[in-house]
Formats: sequence, structure tokens, C-alpha cells
Amino acid sequence: MDYTVPKGMRDFLPAQMNVRLDTMQKIEGVFRSFGYLPLATPAIEKLEVLQKKGGDEIEGQIFQIEGGMGLRFDLTVPLSRVVASNSFPLPFKRYCIAPVWRREEPQKGRFREFFQADIDVVGSTSPRCEAELLACAKFALFKLGFPAPKLMLNNRKVLNALAQKTGIPQEKQNAMFRALDKVGKQTLEKIKEEMIMKGISEKAASEIEKFISFSGTNEKTISFVKKTLGDFATEGANELEAVVNACKLYSFEPEISLSLVRGLDYYTGSVFEISASEEIGSVAGGGRYDNMVGTYGVPSPAVGISLGIERLIALLEEKKKSEGATSAVAQLFIANAKPEFFEYAVEIAWALRQKGINCELDLLERNLRKQFDYANASGVAYIAIVGEKEKAAKKLTLRDLKSGDEELCSIEEAIKKLQGKKSH
Amino acid sequence: MDYTVPKGMRDFLPAQMNVRLDTMQKIEGVFRSFGYLPLATPAIEKLEVLQKKGGDEIEGQIFQIEGGMGLRFDLTVPLSRVVASNSFPLPFKRYCIAPVWRREEPQKGRFREFFQADIDVVGSTSPRCEAELLACAKFALFKLGFPAPKLMLNNRKVLNALAQKTGIPQEKQNAMFRALDKVGKQTLEKIKEEMIMKGISEKAASEIEKFISFSGTNEKTISFVKKTLGDFATEGANELEAVVNACKLYSFEPEISLSLVRGLDYYTGSVFEISASEEIGSVAGGGRYDNMVGTYGVPSPAVGISLGIERLIALLEEKKKSEGATSAVAQLFIANAKPEFFEYAVEIAWALRQKGINCELDLLERNLRKQFDYANASGVAYIAIVGEKEKAAKKLTLRDLKSGDEELCSIEEAIKKLQGKKSH
Repeated sequence: MDYTVPKGMRDFLPAQMNVRLDTMQKIEGVFRSFGYLPLATPAIEKLEVLQKKGGDEIEGQIFQIEGGMGLRFDLTVPLSRVVASNSFPLPFKRYCIAPVWRREEPQKGRFREFFQADIDVVGSTSPRCEAELLACAKFALFKLGFPAPKLMLNNRKVLNALAQKTGIPQEKQNAMFRALDKVGKQTLEKIKEEMIMKGISEKAASEIEKFISFSGTNEKTISFVKKTLGDFATEGANELEAVVNACKLYSFEPEISLSLVRGLDYYTGSVFEISASEEIGSVAGGGRYDNMVGTYGVPSPAVGISLGIERLIALLEEKKKSEGATSAVAQLFIANAKPEFFEYAVEIAWALRQKGINCELDLLERNLRKQFDYANASGVAYIAIVGEKEKAAKKLTLRDLKSGDEELCSIEEAIKKLQGKKSH
Repeated sequence: MDYTVPKGMRDFLPAQMNVRLDTMQKIEGVFRSFGYLPLATPAIEKLEVLQKKGGDEIEGQIFQIEGGMGLRFDLTVPLSRVVASNSFPLPFKRYCIAPVWRREEPQKGRFREFFQADIDVVGSTSPRCEAELLACAKFALFKLGFPAPKLMLNNRKVLNALAQKTGIPQEKQNAMFRALDKVGKQTLEKIKEEMIMKGISEKAASEIEKFISFSGTNEKTISFVKKTLGDFATEGANELEAVVNACKLYSFEPEISLSLVRGLDYYTGSVFEISASEEIGSVAGGGRYDNMVGTYGVPSPAVGISLGIERLIALLEEKKKSEGATSAVAQLFIANAKPEFFEYAVEIAWALRQKGINCELDLLERNLRKQFDYANASGVAYIAIVGEKEKAAKKLTLRDLKSGDEELCSIEEAIKKLQGKKSH
């Protein structure tokens, strides 16, 4: 009989976990450096809470639990519930790095349990929020080794204005957004075809195609939007301009991309997306959702960004693999030459652990040869050997497994040598 | 309409999360210092995997999900599944700090979603394992501020021998264990009554009562066990002795408690339990379960300990509350005297964040007074003020909110001052 995980679920073995923990810690450190507060909510929510977000996309994806409950499918719904029923000093800035669950068909790189890393600002309509979220995501990507991400910005009010200007009726707007959401994955020709198939007039579809194809500096794009859509787009165009200007204070500028949609009903203003690089594609996205919190009771503007950390971890794992990843947590294995020196090994381990050096001892009562085999297999960087000579001198023999160098040193000397080294 | 979490579930707001994260980081650091490897498994497992552990205790407590799945109720079942289907260098030592879910009736201090912190050693029968697990748990408790925990040890083979010696039939042994599990919560009189009610003879119940009441040094207890139970208990008594001796190498000694059971069918040898202190009671427990991994395919000895971190966090939260806990993550809030100095505030924030100092800026475009109000409410330790004077001099005015002291200093001086301070 073979026991496995359910479809779309994963075990993370130690070598993978080392990469995952390192990635999450770096991201958490950056989120905290911007003053975002940790908030955790349960995995299980009431179905009525989850279904409040609405949209067909979500409804079928909830893992249901008897008693009218389900597993959360994102971190924004629980945030909205929490802020609607608590009073925090505003703006409330929170981060959350946690798993979510979706009952969609697993594919390569898409799982039914996966982690998200979100930061959100609730209670402010200022474009400073968008700028800070983008700066924070950019810094996190930098820390993870992606120094030149591409930031794209758009505004749903501009897209709404486009729909209005081209005379698309309310009930067809989702079809338009759904089609636009495929820009980059499909040709403009196919996207136009889709819109027409969904009942949008050929004239409107052509106008939309032309509009979203515009390319130029941000300044020119904003002028183009104002000129083309006129009064319909004043608010959206001004918001685009304000966000671009707020980002300049942080010494970067997102690129306005008039075709950027990001999902259906949810966003109300700014939307953004970050590619780690030209080849790698999207690793973060988000936007302003000023109506969401209100559906849980107390209206409040909100804006957030979500890092696709599974994507980032997959990329970093590839990198680590080529560098020879190890599952080791311990920096060294302290081998006892004979059982009677185990006690002295324990003494050394205690001294090292108190100084934050991770180390292991023999728990199988093996001979020295077999202790070495284990230490080598486990991937530690050093072996310390303790025997007659070492115990008598209150020292240890430290062997660097990479260079093969050995030296007899005191516990203090060993600590000094190991403290500088990275603990996995 | 009021949206709340389901029964037995909790939101953790920032002030609580700061305590939780701090607790978990300390525990994780200690686990890693002993070389335990991180392993993560999905929240959702196949029902057949979960039900394999068996026992009525568990069966009704699983949150079921359609498609023959359920949420994990502990971290040992997933570990057993993983080690049975992977080959690791042995012993495989893993840690896991993660939530589990149980459909039991919530009570004060008992929830339907709660975290566990486990370390386990798979692949070794050596008493060195028990000693290391206890030493590791003891060190973790020390790091959390519990310097004098009480460690109790027993062995299920001794209890099995007791059942055999007193002639309790196999099918009544669970009734005996269930009754003994209440020692400390109920009088010995009541426990004896319960055994008799469940069909254990009065003679046997009296013998059991007498046996578990024995109190003396570990040496005397071991002699008593050997003398009273004879050949039945040789193996168990020897294991008790071996574990006590292995612990001595770590300079501590657990106290043998002959009434300690810890659950029903699961444990096969050593069992242990740790009280943080006389008043606080049990905060950790575990034991040897040499048959568990084998039920998933590949037999392997295993032993583990689980820290009741929810209990520990509750105790630490109480302590923090009396010290005035704060929800702040940022060390300082950088207030701009007027909007035109926001850009300079961003520049300072960037310099501080690069040095690992957590700080916040104004995202509501407020006047200075209101920025101060927010900073005070958010619980930061410092406010930096930047205005005309500061910008011209490339400095900032740093105000210590506790002492009220203010000084004009350079960014480098501010970094130096703040780097020594604890970031929440």
C-alpha cells in the first residue's frame, strides 16, 4: 500500500524547506522594514464570508468543510473581515505570508495549496500607498536577487472610461476585461476576435485594440488617455499621474500599460504587476480595492500587493540546485571516537549551541567510520572529532569537509571560526 | 450583518502576533541548534492516511473535506507518511512548527485550530534520542524564560508489564490506561473506582494503585520496578535506566513517574512530559512510537516531543501584557513637517531600511499633529521629524517618545542609535 499526498498538494523536504524559509524570511524582513504589521487569520472561514468576495472564478474553487465552512482561497478576504470588525490606528498596514487553498485543476507550477505573501494598506486613498507597496515589493525582489524587475501600472477607472467611451454596455464589460486579461498571452487579433464573439461591436473592439496598443513615455500615455477619453477618464488619468509622481519620490517609475486588467470585478483604481525580468514574467500583482472592506460592514479604501512567492521560490530553488543545495541545518557534526567520549561531545555541543552554532551528535551509537558517512551524507560543512587526545587537552579536531584541512583547536577557537559562517 | 470566525478559530492581531512570532522564532532557533531539519507537509491529507493512526479519540475529530480528504490533526502522522516513502540519511531528525485542526468542542484554552512545535528522531532506538529531545525542549523553555522545568519520565513497557503481572486481560488494558491518564487531575481513590467500574478486579486495581504511588529516587524506583514486576518489566526498567543515564550526560535528570501514561495505543516505550513549573503544569510531552512509521510501509523506530506552544504563548502574552505589549513593528515614524519634505523622509527611510531599521512614513498626507497622533497610537519608540532645518542640514530631529528627549542628528548617527535597539 502506498500513501501519498492528495492531488495538487506537496511535501517540502528539508533541502526545499531551507530555500523556502530563507525566501520567506527575506521577504518578511523587507515587509517589516516598511513597518507592516503581522496579522494571522484561521485557515477555516465561514462560507458566507468567503463567498462575499463573489465572482464565478472563486465559487467553485473553495474547499468546503461541513458546517458551512471552507478553507480561505486568498488573504484579502480575511483581512477585509478583520478590519471591518476591529478599529486600528489608520492607515492599517499589514503583512501576511501564509498558505491558501484552491480546488482548481493542478497544472505544472499550479498547486491546490500554495503560499502567498501580501502587504496591504487600509484606510488611505493617497497615491503614496501605491508607491510604497511597489517600492517595498521592489526591495524584496532585490533582496531575493532580482535587481531589475519591470513594474507595470494601469488604472481600472481608465478602463471603465474606455468601456463607456466606446459604448460597451455594463453587462459586456466583464467580457471585455476577460479578453484584455489575455494580452501578452495571445495576439491582439485573437483578443479582438474574442470581444466580437462575446457580442462587442466590431467598431468598439477596434477602438479598444487601438487604445491599448498605445505605447510611449508615461507622460505621453497620460496625455493620450486624456485626449482620447476626455472627461470620462479624468479621474483615472489623474490617479495614474499621481501614482507615477509618488513613485518618482522613491527614485523609480512604473511603466503605464493600458492593457493591464488583473481579474474581473475586484479592483477599483490602480492595478499593477511586476515581472522579475523580461524572461521570467509576472511575480507580483495587486491594486486598489476600495469597495471590498465595505462589504464586511465598514467602508474603507484599501490597496495591496501580493508576491507570487511559489514562483519566486521555484526560481531560487533552480539556482540553488545548480549551486549544490544541501538539506543540512547543522554547521558541524561532532563525532566521538569511542562511546566514552560522547559525554565530552555533548559538552562541546552545549557550548556551541549557546553561541548559536547549530550542531549534531551521534544518536545511533555508531563507530567513527559510520559517523563520518552520516555527516557527509547530511551535508554539514565541518566534522569535529573528539577522542582521547582532544578530551585530555580540552580541545577538538575540526575538519573542513570541503578543503579536507584539519586543525586541533579549543572550543573558543572553534566558535570563533564557525560564527562567521552561514548557518543554512 | 456581522462576520466572525468559525467556532474555535482565532484571528491573531498584530500585538499578539509579535509575541507569537517571537516565541516561534526562539523555539525554531533552538530546534535548529540541535540540527533538526525543517519538513513541511500539506494541511490536507487523504482520509485513509489520517485514519491509519486509529483510535476513537481521533476519528471524530477530523475536519473532513469532500473527495476523501481531511485536515491533519497532528504532525506525527504526516511525518510517518513522509519517512515511509523517502530515504533520508538516518537518523532523520525533523522539526515542524505548524497548525493542526481538531473538531473537538472548544473550551477555555482549547481551540479547533492551534499550533504545535514538534521534534522527532526517526531511525534510532538509542536512549541518546530521548536525552537529546528532553535537552532540546529544556533549552527551548529556558530561552522562553522558564528556567526550571520539571521533567517526568516513564516507560510503556513497564505499564504493560504491570497489566500483565496484575492479570489484566488485553481488552481491559485501555480502560486501565485511560484511568491512569487522569492521575494528577483526580484522586487515586477515584481512579481505582474507575478501573473497578470498567471491569478490572479489585485486587488488580489495588495493586496498580500501590505500584503507581511509589515515590523515591530514580535509582530506588528502578529497583522497585524490577523487584515488583520481575521478568515482566526487565526491558522497560532497563530502558528507564538507560534514558536516565543518557540524560545525566546532559547534566540533568528526569524524574521517573510510574503513573505517566500519555494517551492510549500510540506509544511503545519511553513517555515523557514537561511542566514549566509546579504552578503552570504541562507544556510538552511525547514518547517513543516504534510501530507508527511501519503502518505506512517501512518499519522504523521513532521518538518525538511536542511543545504545547499555544500554552506557552498564552503564558508569555500574559507577561507581555503586564509589561505593556505593543503592536508596533516599526522602530520609528518619520514625520514630515510639510508635504514638500516627504521626499526627504523617503530618502531617510530608504537609508534606515537598508540597515535593517524598520520605519514608517505618513501615507495619509496628514498635518504634523496628526502624524504624531498616529505614531503615538501605533506604539513606535521614536519619531523622526524632518522639515526645513533638517533638510538643509541633511539631518533629522529624533525624539525618544519615552523620555521626550530630542536631538538633531545625522542619518548615520540615527542609524547607530537605533541599531542597538530591539526591533519589535
